Amino acid sequence: MSNRMWGGRFSESPDAIMEEINASIDFDRALASQDIAGSKAHAEMLAKAGIISTEDARKIIDGLDQIAAEIEEGRFTFSRNLEDIHMNVEARLAELIGDAAGRLHTARSRNDQVATDFRLWVRDALDDLDRQILALMKALVTKAAKHAGTVMPGFTHLQSAQPVTFGHHMLAYVEMFARDRSRFRDCRARLNECPLGAAALAGTAFPIDRKMTAAALGFDRPAANSLDAVSDRDFAMEALSDASICAIHLSRFAEEIVIWSSAQFRFVKLSDKFTTGSSIMPQKRNPDAAELVRAKAGRIIGAMNALMVVMKGLPLAYSKDMQEDKEQVFDALPSLSLSLAAMAGMVADLQPNEARLREAAGIGFSTATDLADWLVREAGLPFREAHHITGRIVAEAEALDVDLGEMPIEALRKVYPKLDASVFDVLSVDASVASRVSEGGTAPDNVRQRASEWQARLAEEEALAKATALSPEGSL
Amino acid sequence: MSNRMWGGRFSESPDAIMEEINASIDFDRALASQDIAGSKAHAEMLAKAGIISTEDARKIIDGLDQIAAEIEEGRFTFSRNLEDIHMNVEARLAELIGDAAGRLHTARSRNDQVATDFRLWVRDALDDLDRQILALMKALVTKAAKHAGTVMPGFTHLQSAQPVTFGHHMLAYVEMFARDRSRFRDCRARLNECPLGAAALAGTAFPIDRKMTAAALGFDRPAANSLDAVSDRDFAMEALSDASICAIHLSRFAEEIVIWSSAQFRFVKLSDKFTTGSSIMPQKRNPDAAELVRAKAGRIIGAMNALMVVMKGLPLAYSKDMQEDKEQVFDALPSLSLSLAAMAGMVADLQPNEARLREAAGIGFSTATDLADWLVREAGLPFREAHHITGRIVAEAEALDVDLGEMPIEALRKVYPKLDASVFDVLSVDASVASRVSEGGTAPDNVRQRASEWQARLAEEEALAKATALSPEGSL
Amino acid sequence: MSNRMWGGRFSESPDAIMEEINASIDFDRALASQDIAGSKAHAEMLAKAGIISTEDARKIIDGLDQIAAEIEEGRFTFSRNLEDIHMNVEARLAELIGDAAGRLHTARSRNDQVATDFRLWVRDALDDLDRQILALMKALVTKAAKHAGTVMPGFTHLQSAQPVTFGHHMLAYVEMFARDRSRFRDCRARLNECPLGAAALAGTAFPIDRKMTAAALGFDRPAANSLDAVSDRDFAMEALSDASICAIHLSRFAEEIVIWSSAQFRFVKLSDKFTTGSSIMPQKRNPDAAELVRAKAGRIIGAMNALMVVMKGLPLAYSKDMQEDKEQVFDALPSLSLSLAAMAGMVADLQPNEARLREAAGIGFSTATDLADWLVREAGLPFREAHHITGRIVAEAEALDVDLGEMPIEALRKVYPKLDASVFDVLSVDASVASRVSEGGTAPDNVRQRASEWQARLAEEEALAKATALSPEGSL
Amino acid sequence: MSNRMWGGRFSESPDAIMEEINASIDFDRALASQDIAGSKAHAEMLAKAGIISTEDARKIIDGLDQIAAEIEEGRFTFSRNLEDIHMNVEARLAELIGDAAGRLHTARSRNDQVATDFRLWVRDALDDLDRQILALMKALVTKAAKHAGTVMPGFTHLQSAQPVTFGHHMLAYVEMFARDRSRFRDCRARLNECPLGAAALAGTAFPIDRKMTAAALGFDRPAANSLDAVSDRDFAMEALSDASICAIHLSRFAEEIVIWSSAQFRFVKLSDKFTTGSSIMPQKRNPDAAELVRAKAGRIIGAMNALMVVMKGLPLAYSKDMQEDKEQVFDALPSLSLSLAAMAGMVADLQPNEARLREAAGIGFSTATDLADWLVREAGLPFREAHHITGRIVAEAEALDVDLGEMPIEALRKVYPKLDASVFDVLSVDASVASRVSEGGTAPDNVRQRASEWQARLAEEEALAKATALSPEGSL
Repeated sequence: MSNRMWGGRFSESPDAIMEEINASIDFDRALASQDIAGSKAHAEMLAKAGIISTEDARKIIDGLDQIAAEIEEGRFTFSRNLEDIHMNVEARLAELIGDAAGRLHTARSRNDQVATDFRLWVRDALDDLDRQILALMKALVTKAAKHAGTVMPGFTHLQSAQPVTFGHHMLAYVEMFARDRSRFRDCRARLNECPLGAAALAGTAFPIDRKMTAAALGFDRPAANSLDAVSDRDFAMEALSDASICAIHLSRFAEEIVIWSSAQFRFVKLSDKFTTGSSIMPQKRNPDAAELVRAKAGRIIGAMNALMVVMKGLPLAYSKDMQEDKEQVFDALPSLSLSLAAMAGMVADLQPNEARLREAAGIGFSTATDLADWLVREAGLPFREAHHITGRIVAEAEALDVDLGEMPIEALRKVYPKLDASVFDVLSVDASVASRVSEGGTAPDNVRQRASEWQARLAEEEALAKATALSPEGSL
Repeated sequence: MSNRMWGGRFSESPDAIMEEINASIDFDRALASQDIAGSKAHAEMLAKAGIISTEDARKIIDGLDQIAAEIEEGRFTFSRNLEDIHMNVEARLAELIGDAAGRLHTARSRNDQVATDFRLWVRDALDDLDRQILALMKALVTKAAKHAGTVMPGFTHLQSAQPVTFGHHMLAYVEMFARDRSRFRDCRARLNECPLGAAALAGTAFPIDRKMTAAALGFDRPAANSLDAVSDRDFAMEALSDASICAIHLSRFAEEIVIWSSAQFRFVKLSDKFTTGSSIMPQKRNPDAAELVRAKAGRIIGAMNALMVVMKGLPLAYSKDMQEDKEQVFDALPSLSLSLAAMAGMVADLQPNEARLREAAGIGFSTATDLADWLVREAGLPFREAHHITGRIVAEAEALDVDLGEMPIEALRKVYPKLDASVFDVLSVDASVASRVSEGGTAPDNVRQRASEWQARLAEEEALAKATALSPEGSL
Repeated sequence: MSNRMWGGRFSESPDAIMEEINASIDFDRALASQDIAGSKAHAEMLAKAGIISTEDARKIIDGLDQIAAEIEEGRFTFSRNLEDIHMNVEARLAELIGDAAGRLHTARSRNDQVATDFRLWVRDALDDLDRQILALMKALVTKAAKHAGTVMPGFTHLQSAQPVTFGHHMLAYVEMFARDRSRFRDCRARLNECPLGAAALAGTAFPIDRKMTAAALGFDRPAANSLDAVSDRDFAMEALSDASICAIHLSRFAEEIVIWSSAQFRFVKLSDKFTTGSSIMPQKRNPDAAELVRAKAGRIIGAMNALMVVMKGLPLAYSKDMQEDKEQVFDALPSLSLSLAAMAGMVADLQPNEARLREAAGIGFSTATDLADWLVREAGLPFREAHHITGRIVAEAEALDVDLGEMPIEALRKVYPKLDASVFDVLSVDASVASRVSEGGTAPDNVRQRASEWQARLAEEEALAKATALSPEGSL
Repeated sequence: MSNRMWGGRFSESPDAIMEEINASIDFDRALASQDIAGSKAHAEMLAKAGIISTEDARKIIDGLDQIAAEIEEGRFTFSRNLEDIHMNVEARLAELIGDAAGRLHTARSRNDQVATDFRLWVRDALDDLDRQILALMKALVTKAAKHAGTVMPGFTHLQSAQPVTFGHHMLAYVEMFARDRSRFRDCRARLNECPLGAAALAGTAFPIDRKMTAAALGFDRPAANSLDAVSDRDFAMEALSDASICAIHLSRFAEEIVIWSSAQFRFVKLSDKFTTGSSIMPQKRNPDAAELVRAKAGRIIGAMNALMVVMKGLPLAYSKDMQEDKEQVFDALPSLSLSLAAMAGMVADLQPNEARLREAAGIGFSTATDLADWLVREAGLPFREAHHITGRIVAEAEALDVDLGEMPIEALRKVYPKLDASVFDVLSVDASVASRVSEGGTAPDNVRQRASEWQARLAEEEALAKATALSPEGSL
């Protein structure tokens, strides 16, 4: 087997190098569906505006439909000689319908065409991500409702700080993913302007109707400046930034799952479906899916960076550098989609180990702040003083090797004489979480209520999403 | 002079290392104003809710006002021993008002306190950036209105492709910056939830009124989950992503200014204010400000990356890693602000060299597509055929060493007999730009109209911004 | 055509999700050759050490050779069920040779196996890049030798500052690429330690001979710590960092080529092979290859970032996150290879426009510093004073609208009376470059000498590289 | 207190904006020591070469020494009007020695001056980092030697996989940091070429002696190409890449320390010096220093990115963008230095919890591979079959709820009849680690030997470093 990798090939032929670096068909074929939808809308508009005949438009549209079918069925032959998806489609159209094919590109350029295709692709991807984030949120809310009262440690510095509930922890992620979803929706709204009609960069003298093509493709409006329409890729950078932030949220949860699955924590049990075993240690459940989700954050942040570096310092309007925009997006957004799917699956199957969580929740005098709060509330001490006294009590408890709840009342009174037995009401982990009823606090009642609010809201969103999926826009 | 840099110092004392790595007061003092505003709102609420006395609240608020004045006037001594801004303020408050100071931290933790301070700071920064983007857009629109009819080359691959107008080019950036502004506004809306009351991470048992503090600090609502409120920094990552995209837009314009200022292009003249000269070449105008604006994109993208890497894979709720969030934001957003200010200044003073631009616009047979479009429109040819014929005419023109508009009609007819003299109406750069009247196209009339729409809209926005600046929220 | 992208598929089946996220065979098949080489070396060693029989080793090696042939010839069926390249190869081996196949994995684990394969792949890639950088340097040196005396402007801020020679400019890049090459060589030397024998992470109790396998695979030595050997990927991060820096060098040159190719600069003419034309403007030469090379820097920097984010904060020894290491490297290093090939091709064909370069070199009083130096040297003025006087002369020249070399001697003497006609000897661009004879300066003689030094050195290196390619290590 | 941040200030005065964006003295004053060293060497050379008088050189050098003293003692007034460190120093020199100061800049430019200063700074920083990595390695080796036989779990997927020793784990990091150190050393060697004499970009006509200045400043040689010397910053990018990789190594260890310090793991105890307590939970030891070290990886990677984005696509020779190079380096390298110091401190004080580690090492049938290896070695089974049988035995052990070492021999024989009692010799964690004697394996004897090799080598290196520190180069 040869150890020559790529150099050999390139060293001989400039043509081979140029084809390799220049042709985009290997990846932009992913735009086939969007390219055909865009061309159909364009042809229809050209006919309506009297720029081409109705008959030519009909031929073009029928031909494009046939090409779509050929691609769908895997019967289409993509050619590197034709460089990109646009020329591959147009060349095939010419084979199918002859001269009329040559009229399709009237009042259009590859610059506005690819900008339109790419926006449509990103928009479709965002819609897909929207559905998946929704599914993940639903899985989290279900788990939260079920474990609204399951006590677990709340960590700072990976040290037990205060008891919280497992449901509350799940809902924290629901909030994060809700923001991620809203970020993607803002991105979608902002990108939803149609470049078609910007032509090469200056617009066109043909009496085109850009509102018509924009509407046909589900855009809110035509892009307002032809130079901007063909030369910016901020929508792609924004989508990748949003994806990076969402991936970081996922990576945080994934890290927790990996730690929680360790033999030392044993906080949760993952299902077989998202773990791998070992033929030699059949009892093993390696959290592979969680680790891979954690790692995907790197991949997605890398893609965002790549595109940003590409775009930095590029003069208007179109530079070939921008051909490097697509592969990053085509890699990053599906990677996020896969991560969301894996996480939703893991969450659905995740079994918290309630006994273990409860035990861990009590470690480290985790109700110390409840004691301090009692001293403020019941004994009227300034917070800082209450804090100080609590510290002395905890030190005493540590010396006695008992939990706060197990301290003899005399030991407590030795430190602060006004303490009475009612203090024990706040020193258990259950009392602690039950008391945190402030808005957004971890009290089980809060969690139950918030979970059911989310359940209602997500059901509504899902109904809406289903309705949208049936709309004309869905039929591209 | 010693060549020892830092190693020596650290090698001796663990205490010095720990202070150096742990203390944040050197940078989080920038939060002083936000920290005091937050504490005042908190104290007011504690009194209203009956958790502390009205008198204590009064003392606290007066003390905080005095501290604010001391800081404003540079009379406050920040201490590294007190680690961070929160403890510096609270310690000083204790000096000023005694015991009552110890009641301020009731039902609060440094975790929700810093999350609140940081959000307020970012929100203030976003408001400032909003005003600056507006100012830059205004400068661009003014220039666009003035040069709606100034012809220049529209480039692809830095090669002249089709004539456009200078005004149209300016408006392309107006669209980009409008989207940047809208991104920041979305970010602001999303971050505008108040963490205060989340306490350490679990909420609190005190009967606090989170809606009251949220409203007092200009937040839309309290954050809905206490764990999320103290552990996420997505708002900062989003602000830095938005800043990165805006900085990339600026870098593209800056690159154009650098190229346009070269002796070879001479498209524009920058004012002395944003260039540097050379004592030896007094005629020189180096585009230093534009180059620095271009470079700031790197700085801002770097900051975004830094924060994303910090946050990747962090378990909930608070980890000390998150102390590294602030410096990136404190560096990146002011860097963007400075870039925007420099760019607005450059644009205001920029003088396009109209003669030179017009001449360049005609280079390279830049009206070839106009000729092709004429063949489609007037001779009814399919676009691809018209394209092909035009290519042959251009080749002929090149052979004759004349521009398209200078070709003898016979030479044109030799290639395509049906051409008549009316074709010359579309071959000048002025005819070309005038013809591009499609929505968003470069025609001077389009540009004038779009510029005046923007002028109206920006005036409105400015009035609104001024009104907002007078609102209570502005008085933090 | 469906607008469903990926979500639909994933929403139904956890198995599909897990296979999609977990299987690596789609990309790690690129390691086939390295995997087989590693297994052959391992089998040979096991037999030599008496751990398996010579006969079994023979069977294994023959089987592996057959598999190698099957893969080479495209007859091998890769299976996703078998997850990765290692299991695909081993499973096929079992089909071919039966039980003996089960002995191959003795004293080995997938952890040390993949670490070895990946190092071998990176090493092969570095060797390939080495050859390609050499080829690019050669093209540059050839061009430099030819244009040692071709005068062009030396730019600061894209403004003409001092005349230099085109050859000198080419040699600047030779220095950069020489450092890039040395960086890759350092990386290769550092990575060239063999993980094989580290087993899962702890080493093994079998009496293996790690020196033997290391030598057989061309490694300098076995990796010294089994935990480190399977858990670090710094060699890949280093390779990607080196690639990023090299890509940045390429991007700088690519930027120059794009600018130099503009109608406004016309400094160079690219060959048809690395430009694209336009069917409508047949005279056009768009510098597509240069733009794509410029953009690849983004792609490569992105890959480096991705891997760094993946590795950040991973505990030892092996985490599944590390499966994300390969695709970044498999994308970035070939992208650099392609960029180097394209750049070498462009340089070989590049034609500097000598007349245009010479003319541009004289723009902007570019010999002002030569005048100042004359005043220091001949009139004994302090540099700062000479500088000041020169500034006044330039201002005078500008007022007279003449070049420095065209100024009447009286005009010069009006500013500084001691000036005599001998000053004109230093005011031409040719005199200027000829005078810069300091070590590393731009004088044509310097350039010629340096170019011929490089020619000799590169010829030597090439001979060495050819010799190495014939060595046993080359026969993997 | 005002909520106006920066915008207000900038909106009024272009001069303020330009000063803010253009002046570098706020950060490049860090180069003062290097700038003065460079100027002294330059002056000495000018005199030796007869370009300035010996008397002027003497005055210049004395003046510079005085300025150095003023800066050292904090008596120097830096002025923003003078923009940068070079002009600040030269202006002060003129005040001190008059006209002779004006001769210092002969045959020099700010371009080669700053390139020289910056290289000197980076070189000093690398030397400092070298010493610190050495110190960290020493701390690790000491710990490794002490705990060569302390058994702990070796993890994959944060699941116990095979027992290793704590010493072996420490030595894994020694290998990583050794490579980091070697990377920095390669970087130092590569950067150690002197730009001085490149002048603005073209070299100079003065008969300077670049070898003399290079030697005086401890450089190995003058940079070979004047354009390259002033326009590249690859040395800084390389230093930041190396720092990023080192920081990632530190982040991995920091992550382990955080996890190991959790109540669930309790593998190690950190000293008070590198943890923070809580006034309310005095028993608490939050691993703040470890978390901050983990986070610094983000900061350093961000700085590397920032510089790379700045440099991408910059034409030669000098662009003002490059002024953005310094702050990233000035932030990142000291951050790494601080991280190394903190980690060395933590390691020195770290107390592994031996009992807890040993217990954890046995969890999860961690000697299963030892059993499989026994079956291969003693029963002659093919590895895959041995693996399979072991899996069945582990399943049996799990069913019986016993460890492998506690299984009744009959239970073992039920699965595989040929097993005999000698198998128990390999099933304890101690037997397991003791058996891993392969080169680089975890056996305590291996660890002891490797630790003592490192001790010897580090002692040698330290002696060498001390000797170097006394060399002339150290006296800058």
